[in-house]
Amino acid sequence: MSTSLTGIAASAGIAIAKAFRYEEPDLTVEKKSGVDVKAEIQAFDAALEKSRAELEEIKEKTRRDMGDEHAEIFSAHLLVLRDPEFVDAVRQKVQDDQVNASFALDEKANEFIMIFESMDNEYMKERAADIRDVSKRVLAHLLGKPIVSLAEINEEVIVVGEDLTPSDTAQLNKEFVKGFATNIGGRTSHSAIMARSLEIPAVVGTKTVTHDTGQHQYIIVDGNDGTVIIDPSEDELADYRSRQEAFEQQKAEWAKLKNEPSVSKDGTHVELVANIGTPNDLEGVHNNGAEGVGLYRTEFLYMGRSELPTEDEQFDAYKQVVESLDGKPVVIRTLDIGGDKELPYLDLPEEMNPFLGFRAIRLCLEMTDMFRTQLRALLRAGAYGNLKIMFPMIATLEEFREAKALLEEEQQKLEAEGVQTGTDIEVGIMVEIPSTAVMAPQFAKEVDFFSIGTNDLIQYTMAADRMNERVSYLYQPYNPAILGLVKSVIDASHAEGKWTGMCGEMAGDPIAVPLLFGLGLDEFSMSATSVLPARSQLLKMTKQEAADTAAEALKLSTADEVQQLVESRFPMA
Amino acid sequence: MSTSLTGIAASAGIAIAKAFRYEEPDLTVEKKSGVDVKAEIQAFDAALEKSRAELEEIKEKTRRDMGDEHAEIFSAHLLVLRDPEFVDAVRQKVQDDQVNASFALDEKANEFIMIFESMDNEYMKERAADIRDVSKRVLAHLLGKPIVSLAEINEEVIVVGEDLTPSDTAQLNKEFVKGFATNIGGRTSHSAIMARSLEIPAVVGTKTVTHDTGQHQYIIVDGNDGTVIIDPSEDELADYRSRQEAFEQQKAEWAKLKNEPSVSKDGTHVELVANIGTPNDLEGVHNNGAEGVGLYRTEFLYMGRSELPTEDEQFDAYKQVVESLDGKPVVIRTLDIGGDKELPYLDLPEEMNPFLGFRAIRLCLEMTDMFRTQLRALLRAGAYGNLKIMFPMIATLEEFREAKALLEEEQQKLEAEGVQTGTDIEVGIMVEIPSTAVMAPQFAKEVDFFSIGTNDLIQYTMAADRMNERVSYLYQPYNPAILGLVKSVIDASHAEGKWTGMCGEMAGDPIAVPLLFGLGLDEFSMSATSVLPARSQLLKMTKQEAADTAAEALKLSTADEVQQLVESRFPMA
Repeated sequence: MSTSLTGIAASAGIAIAKAFRYEEPDLTVEKKSGVDVKAEIQAFDAALEKSRAELEEIKEKTRRDMGDEHAEIFSAHLLVLRDPEFVDAVRQKVQDDQVNASFALDEKANEFIMIFESMDNEYMKERAADIRDVSKRVLAHLLGKPIVSLAEINEEVIVVGEDLTPSDTAQLNKEFVKGFATNIGGRTSHSAIMARSLEIPAVVGTKTVTHDTGQHQYIIVDGNDGTVIIDPSEDELADYRSRQEAFEQQKAEWAKLKNEPSVSKDGTHVELVANIGTPNDLEGVHNNGAEGVGLYRTEFLYMGRSELPTEDEQFDAYKQVVESLDGKPVVIRTLDIGGDKELPYLDLPEEMNPFLGFRAIRLCLEMTDMFRTQLRALLRAGAYGNLKIMFPMIATLEEFREAKALLEEEQQKLEAEGVQTGTDIEVGIMVEIPSTAVMAPQFAKEVDFFSIGTNDLIQYTMAADRMNERVSYLYQPYNPAILGLVKSVIDASHAEGKWTGMCGEMAGDPIAVPLLFGLGLDEFSMSATSVLPARSQLLKMTKQEAADTAAEALKLSTADEVQQLVESRFPMA
Repeated sequence: MSTSLTGIAASAGIAIAKAFRYEEPDLTVEKKSGVDVKAEIQAFDAALEKSRAELEEIKEKTRRDMGDEHAEIFSAHLLVLRDPEFVDAVRQKVQDDQVNASFALDEKANEFIMIFESMDNEYMKERAADIRDVSKRVLAHLLGKPIVSLAEINEEVIVVGEDLTPSDTAQLNKEFVKGFATNIGGRTSHSAIMARSLEIPAVVGTKTVTHDTGQHQYIIVDGNDGTVIIDPSEDELADYRSRQEAFEQQKAEWAKLKNEPSVSKDGTHVELVANIGTPNDLEGVHNNGAEGVGLYRTEFLYMGRSELPTEDEQFDAYKQVVESLDGKPVVIRTLDIGGDKELPYLDLPEEMNPFLGFRAIRLCLEMTDMFRTQLRALLRAGAYGNLKIMFPMIATLEEFREAKALLEEEQQKLEAEGVQTGTDIEVGIMVEIPSTAVMAPQFAKEVDFFSIGTNDLIQYTMAADRMNERVSYLYQPYNPAILGLVKSVIDASHAEGKWTGMCGEMAGDPIAVPLLFGLGLDEFSMSATSVLPARSQLLKMTKQEAADTAAEALKLSTADEVQQLVESRFPMA
């Protein structure tokens, strides 16, 4: 009899194949005293060197397959290998205690991991995970038990493991690895994000999949609904093969829409654009027929390095993106750092409630040198295409006016210096703070456009940290309060002849799309892979149907009622 | 020449007197080894005993003069004295290292303080402050340098110090201490809150007042605007004496309004009621002519103890309050714990953003046994007066329905048990989360009343932690977005024949009062000492003037513009 498990649907699609049980080698270390110190240190240095070479290779492969953003994690790993505080501490311990390098490494790594984990700070906790991943690799080399490389899999399998580290996931070869299933992890864990980027079906957080699956047993991974079936029956196999086929057919249908306009059944046009993190994401934008970039997050330019990027570095990145889009719109968001995203070299204070703290525009308006550099790079890149500038976390009109004044000052300086800049660059704001949504009529007179950032807008409007599991039930995109705020923003922009976009996860959500279209949203910015499904969905509804549904939804009392309404009006396949 | 300093106006009124420079004794300790261990431990125990007796006395005096809520801090101090983990650690150190008790105490206290301070948790940081305050007292006894007792001041002075601890402030004798000025602290620091409760003028956060003031030098403390003048000229003295007189006259005018109704110039009536924390605050309610209690915070019943309060303990406290109000309304808020307020015995998880976390109704709907106990106590107390029940932190209609269902279940159980309960108890909610303000029309159909909690509503609407100094400029009560949300809530309640109150600090703010009156707010709940000034302010305006000003304010762009508008329409004396 087959076994069925339910986990978290982490990456869409259905995979059917033999299980490849991925287990870590036994890295238990023994303490040896009175060792040959010199030999141990040489062995340690050799293991470091091998690990470094492997990581450089993995980083390069990741950059090629998945882009800069995903490769960044390995820059962090390489930094650990180079970190004298860590590496010298191991050497020192070998020398002082005359112990074997593997023991010293294990001790020191655990010490560093404990220190970082005890810090109440997400950035530091991630550093603990980095040290764990890296020291495991070095330790495996020291013990002569190199980590099984997932890169060497050469038959069709589904990888089953406790968890996959970023370096594990990065090595997966799409040709052979048809999917994966893990015991732990969530939709936003690193391996889940990478699976979506690789378009490999994945289910995470099953708790027991490694326990329930035998080596080489057949399994089914349904990344659409989070099901894993171990040792499926003939009927189950047939059922899932036909579901797989239907999903592939749907994908083929979507692919046909790549060069089509984004219109509803009655011909009403909207813009379906993509969110990107680095120029490497441009391939996805083009492959998925996005009509532009609705959100270019510039944080990655600032991350995984030890000092601020220069004006020219930024200019090159921005120019590359706007040129590649060839006249299509590119909305670039200025630096949104702070909150859960830190830059070690800025040395920001720890805060009790970082999501309600000193971040994004609040920080840029204080660190004006850094901000002016970014504004200059943006203005210069504006000469090469259809670039728009967007300020994040605007809460008051004063903040917008101050940011815009800095932009104008830099524009004038550049002109005086005879440097070429864009002309008539649109300047807009993210609407992600409730005050700004409520004040949209006043803002609409001064900004060129709005882009609603639903991830933050929802968490502030519901007063619930979306990262906190105990209150995550309050993260309700379909709550009528959220729809009400979205409507006020759209109406306010139209009253002044401006436009409104949305660049949170909600913009590509199939339940939200009809509501947003009905409320009059002009631009939907989403992960590139959601563009074609959304285009296909739009083709099946009229503007009037969508508007009627949205108007009704606004009068409902709960998010559940809204979801039921949409599902009854727009049945999904 | 006189010196003028600007600090934070912490408690209203003007004081003119000689400075009393309050300096802590030099508590430097020397390490002595090879001591008589037994004698040292005896000396330590004697110092503990003296400190305990002093603290019991201070606690009792505080309870008498200021009420239970203020006395609570000394229960926490007494707990430190009794904490075996701390006290035994000192004894152990004396024994193990054969060192003097004062050295051991100093070492151990610093160790505990460092541990607590390094925790990223306000509750633990307060514990660090408690340990510092208490160990200083014990150390002073050990060193034979008892702390100067402010209680012994017997001539008219203004106390000048670096900072005043809660135990310092509690000992101030109003008859002689005419005011105080400190280098550090803010409007919400403990000493500031106590000064307002004692009605002693105070200015805090002057940075240099101890440096600039000589012993016995004349100084002026203006707690209305935060000015401190050292060694004032004759002209300045005359000026401030006349201001002082004007302020006293105004207070006398206010006192005449104690038994008058709260009406505007044209006779429109509103309710001016008080916020309380414990039954001890009732005296202030009656002395200041409040027309009821708009917010009875029940947290203090749960604090400073080691287990939950019983149903009967709660019933007694609630009954005492409703009986004392003799038919006037008493709005009691169910437990609002979590966020920055913790109960050690509930062992809540640490959160990354506690203000967006698991607190208040979210926690009560999960810990239903605890919640049902409170609801039963409230229902029973409802038989003794005009009690209304209010749920905090409601974000969705489901939460309200769930809480109300629990209340109805307990009502039925009590009826079945033949226990007397209130009849037709009104059940309302705090509106302190933006989603609830936006959804007010839907909520208004189901709740009996709204009470707008502006402290939280402002911080969520502006996405700014009001405790975080770097973003506190965004805590803007007059922002048109806040006024807009307040208006929607009031309008929605009136459309359904319900009423809206406000129980945040904003309700008693002289700039906000005309705006709120103009928007149609029905009930203003504030510190008892603000009731008479607000009543006096209302008498000077008509409903139409206020409504016109509010309508204009809603169209403005910034909080500053709103403040200027109100100041131009309703000049303050």
